[in-house]
Amino acid sequence: MIIVFEPAATAEQVQHVYDRLQEWGFTPVLQEGAQASIAITGDSSSLKAETLEAFDGVQKAVRLTQPYKLVAREFKPEGTIIERDGVKIGGKHFAVLAGPCSVETEEQYLATARAVKKSGAKVLRACIYKPRTSPYDFQGVAEKGLPWLKKAKDETGLPLCTEVMDERAIEKTLAHVDFYQVGARNMQNYDLLRALGKTDKPIVLKRGLSATVKELLLAAEYIMAYGNHDVILCERGIRTYETATRFTLDVGAVPVLRQLTHLPIIVDPSHPAGKRSLVPALSKAGLAVGSDGLIIETHPDPERAWSDAAQQLTFDQFDQLMKELRPIAGAVGRTMD
Amino acid sequence: MIIVFEPAATAEQVQHVYDRLQEWGFTPVLQEGAQASIAITGDSSSLKAETLEAFDGVQKAVRLTQPYKLVAREFKPEGTIIERDGVKIGGKHFAVLAGPCSVETEEQYLATARAVKKSGAKVLRACIYKPRTSPYDFQGVAEKGLPWLKKAKDETGLPLCTEVMDERAIEKTLAHVDFYQVGARNMQNYDLLRALGKTDKPIVLKRGLSATVKELLLAAEYIMAYGNHDVILCERGIRTYETATRFTLDVGAVPVLRQLTHLPIIVDPSHPAGKRSLVPALSKAGLAVGSDGLIIETHPDPERAWSDAAQQLTFDQFDQLMKELRPIAGAVGRTMD
Amino acid sequence: MIIVFEPAATAEQVQHVYDRLQEWGFTPVLQEGAQASIAITGDSSSLKAETLEAFDGVQKAVRLTQPYKLVAREFKPEGTIIERDGVKIGGKHFAVLAGPCSVETEEQYLATARAVKKSGAKVLRACIYKPRTSPYDFQGVAEKGLPWLKKAKDETGLPLCTEVMDERAIEKTLAHVDFYQVGARNMQNYDLLRALGKTDKPIVLKRGLSATVKELLLAAEYIMAYGNHDVILCERGIRTYETATRFTLDVGAVPVLRQLTHLPIIVDPSHPAGKRSLVPALSKAGLAVGSDGLIIETHPDPERAWSDAAQQLTFDQFDQLMKELRPIAGAVGRTMD
Amino acid sequence: MIIVFEPAATAEQVQHVYDRLQEWGFTPVLQEGAQASIAITGDSSSLKAETLEAFDGVQKAVRLTQPYKLVAREFKPEGTIIERDGVKIGGKHFAVLAGPCSVETEEQYLATARAVKKSGAKVLRACIYKPRTSPYDFQGVAEKGLPWLKKAKDETGLPLCTEVMDERAIEKTLAHVDFYQVGARNMQNYDLLRALGKTDKPIVLKRGLSATVKELLLAAEYIMAYGNHDVILCERGIRTYETATRFTLDVGAVPVLRQLTHLPIIVDPSHPAGKRSLVPALSKAGLAVGSDGLIIETHPDPERAWSDAAQQLTFDQFDQLMKELRPIAGAVGRTMD
Repeated sequence: MIIVFEPAATAEQVQHVYDRLQEWGFTPVLQEGAQASIAITGDSSSLKAETLEAFDGVQKAVRLTQPYKLVAREFKPEGTIIERDGVKIGGKHFAVLAGPCSVETEEQYLATARAVKKSGAKVLRACIYKPRTSPYDFQGVAEKGLPWLKKAKDETGLPLCTEVMDERAIEKTLAHVDFYQVGARNMQNYDLLRALGKTDKPIVLKRGLSATVKELLLAAEYIMAYGNHDVILCERGIRTYETATRFTLDVGAVPVLRQLTHLPIIVDPSHPAGKRSLVPALSKAGLAVGSDGLIIETHPDPERAWSDAAQQLTFDQFDQLMKELRPIAGAVGRTMD
Repeated sequence: MIIVFEPAATAEQVQHVYDRLQEWGFTPVLQEGAQASIAITGDSSSLKAETLEAFDGVQKAVRLTQPYKLVAREFKPEGTIIERDGVKIGGKHFAVLAGPCSVETEEQYLATARAVKKSGAKVLRACIYKPRTSPYDFQGVAEKGLPWLKKAKDETGLPLCTEVMDERAIEKTLAHVDFYQVGARNMQNYDLLRALGKTDKPIVLKRGLSATVKELLLAAEYIMAYGNHDVILCERGIRTYETATRFTLDVGAVPVLRQLTHLPIIVDPSHPAGKRSLVPALSKAGLAVGSDGLIIETHPDPERAWSDAAQQLTFDQFDQLMKELRPIAGAVGRTMD
Repeated sequence: MIIVFEPAATAEQVQHVYDRLQEWGFTPVLQEGAQASIAITGDSSSLKAETLEAFDGVQKAVRLTQPYKLVAREFKPEGTIIERDGVKIGGKHFAVLAGPCSVETEEQYLATARAVKKSGAKVLRACIYKPRTSPYDFQGVAEKGLPWLKKAKDETGLPLCTEVMDERAIEKTLAHVDFYQVGARNMQNYDLLRALGKTDKPIVLKRGLSATVKELLLAAEYIMAYGNHDVILCERGIRTYETATRFTLDVGAVPVLRQLTHLPIIVDPSHPAGKRSLVPALSKAGLAVGSDGLIIETHPDPERAWSDAAQQLTFDQFDQLMKELRPIAGAVGRTMD
Repeated sequence: MIIVFEPAATAEQVQHVYDRLQEWGFTPVLQEGAQASIAITGDSSSLKAETLEAFDGVQKAVRLTQPYKLVAREFKPEGTIIERDGVKIGGKHFAVLAGPCSVETEEQYLATARAVKKSGAKVLRACIYKPRTSPYDFQGVAEKGLPWLKKAKDETGLPLCTEVMDERAIEKTLAHVDFYQVGARNMQNYDLLRALGKTDKPIVLKRGLSATVKELLLAAEYIMAYGNHDVILCERGIRTYETATRFTLDVGAVPVLRQLTHLPIIVDPSHPAGKRSLVPALSKAGLAVGSDGLIIETHPDPERAWSDAAQQLTFDQFDQLMKELRPIAGAVGRTMD
């Protein structure tokens, strides 16, 4: 059983329900945040949803058998559309997020921002912290890049999406960005998920390299349980025995997730491709399989990129790909505008 | 280095080249069949292609660095289009192969044949031998089904594709079917591949459950090396840690194979889906990613099917799916007619 | 429910039970062979084991919930010890099978036979047919090697174990060898399993590259269902994302199999190692984890081997390894003599 | 090229080398900490190790081709033995770390501490923070458990090993524990690795669920690059397609790591087993394959454990296992005392 409170519910109202549940012998788990909720773990078969919905401040009470609650489609049958700065992700809206793997220099970043805006991207990648396998690799420009981000946003009007790895990075960027991204390696970094759950920005949550669909949903549940209900799931390829591609894009996860959750789902074709010649085909598969968007790496001069050189598209390649995606979007009942 | 002979080359012409190569100190590997070839293993850097192409009967000599030769795109840069009974697979032609998982009864089979023909399928699945994980499961109707196959073909005009597991099954079906299929479990059954290499029918070669792209190409090379150049590769999902789908459809293998080989590539969405509600999304992904066709399981009453009950489509579902595929095919420059 | 008949049961006795089961409305599956059995698929909850054991010729009737029957430990609680030519595998007996990856020449083979005998091996690898990924690789010496096998056996007294890929190879070798091996690629080659089920030789059944424990047991069930109850399971590494070793030796499968089946289990450390420096460590793990034996590749001059050059041990390395294994065998309550 | 400074080197000495390298046109990466180091990324072929070792404060300069430097066996050919509170891990010393999955109550913890001490464990698990897949599961007793840890250590004299997930947890526990553990999900949590690199406690670094051996070494490199050279690698099973065990224990990683790194390597048999009946076999495999220790979960009443109930050993089972491990340790030249 999960009980979700109105955003306007008072702390007293929430506490009252919590106390009553304890009195009745249940084990309530309280999650505070923008929108408080109480999950009842253990057996709650004797409780009626109507009883709970009669309390002041309660928006909804739903009985669920899955270990994930707030993310479940049973909890919210209609699909969620996330809207920010005029961009919609979900429903009929197919959105492309684009930009460089790493923010490198002001010139590189502004050039990319202009190019992807012109080709029709809706959100701009803005990664200034880079989790890298080796401690000796480039770790991102960090806060030095914040002014460039501002210029790019001012000029193009595109909202910014940045990757963070810990709470301090959230504090430093909160006033500057519009979406947060959780990288694959941090999908089960629960302290990070909790911290993002307390922000009010949409979170692009990338599936871990060997995470199951269920684990991805439970990671999203962490964010939602702390009050932030704007989560976008991202399939970005899983690790398998096959090395012909960098990762194996698990397109099947998209319709599976669609059945299990109301959250929007996007696809990252760049990381599984691992080389740019494969990105267009994977992008088309990601669109046709029913996702709500793509996140694509682009760079003014990919061969000289400071990270992921092999898989970033040139501006021309990106523009061409966007042109090829539009008729497919039409054929599957989506709009890219 | 690989030397391919004209289909009309005589045994003497082939032997002559073979003897000369031995004389020169090379290690030729002769493959007879409808179209003979000689592969030179080991170092052949001192040999010139022109020298070899000057011999009578030689069609082509190509130096290749890959372990696979005849399947390589370097060997035949233009894509192969396989044509049989008026059906084309490859190039602009996107073909759907459909039919039941198993041939069960005359009624079931004829009903399915009519339905898939009506919806636009081009080739009819005709599986009378079933490789089953348990010795106690239904193993196929075997030769008892041959008359039903004939009726289905006579009535619909659709060519038939059947799975075989050994040489005796080839002998029993050779006069009755048009395409052969090699199942995933038999992709490296080399005696079977050799036997199919000596037939003149197109072979749908399914990727093994944990086969790499390279191993799939080498399995196709076995068939081609024995003289049968009509091989269609089939991506059907690989085994990974994820169990939310029955197998993980590796759509990325399609563009990778496209770069490496000239052979047509089709996708089986039914086996990776494992349940029918996921088949349409995977079919669309398989089309959009750039394959040359799909192989889809359909049944008049899937819940009562004798094998793979969960993943077969009803006729209505199949018809609806075909309608949804057509505009996507158009959007990616393909025709389904 | 599975009903196993006495080896001496007549065809009439078996048929009588079969007919009665049909009469009673059950679905019996009859497996003939050295030891006939009848499996009842579907619901058999109303049948009593005692009723069936009262029929003439019936040795045993056991109710089982697993899809595998004859291999199940529930069916035969005590572990099976396989004995052939004085060699015991199972129980306290830890046996090492050794020899070259491929039989290459008479000299190479006899030298290896003498060396492994001297170091304490109990069974001699005798592989004259080689399933190879590429059609251009060495495919084995085939029947040309049979006289060398005879010499090796005559001289050392070691029983011979050879790999076969199809029925014709069984016919050609039946009079010459003592054990058959099914390679990983053929674990689900059901025609081969059926044919081996009709022989009376112990079968070393290697686990497929991506076979589950359950699939391995069902493959063994095929052999047993056709009458041959002498099956030895072999864990030889599975395919995973990790490429630091050739395959990932799944030692955990050994205790899992021990719980599920009464059949002996051996470990192949050579194929997962992929290079000889790793073979000793994997051999020790295979012994300590509780297997009944090892199958190790050895060669007089590994670097010049015609196949698997990197992973074969020299005679000295093999001898040293055998010396190191003995005290571990003692420590885990096993004997290598 | 990697340059490691004496622990007593001054900041000026380090800076001097750094400046000189920049002057010479190289790209030095400085890592401060208990023991500073400078890695030179990019081409350094023109630099001589002797030149660098002549600078004041430099302990050693080594040219390395691998992406990992400080962890490489080439950098430190002799194996590292980690010693803390009289416990040695590495070399001939085989150490067992044991204790409950989670610290639950004072009684549970003290009982376990006494039991594992008596059976011969050398380090006590002391996990008060638990990373859990679901936000609704028990997340650890947190700082409430610190007094119980103190009592357990005072009474048994065993050093304590605790898992941390972020920097704040390090701050809260630094005065109370002796070893830190990085869980599998956090192996690539680089902020955490950096923070641990600045402590002076040995770090048990668990391999990620789908981490390669190389990625594990690079994660260890992060810790060492920040100055903490006391890292113990831990193989704990990887995620594969096989579900018969919870994870697949990759014993082959142990000898592979042994060749690549000088760091001690231990094995966690509890997590791959997933159920207690499999733990003894995996423990023996982990010992025989050549690791330097085991980390085993034990609990006074496993079925009532608050986490990982299925895989924890009872005290009797643990004691019996320790008795069975001793003769194997002797057989492979190790001591458990």
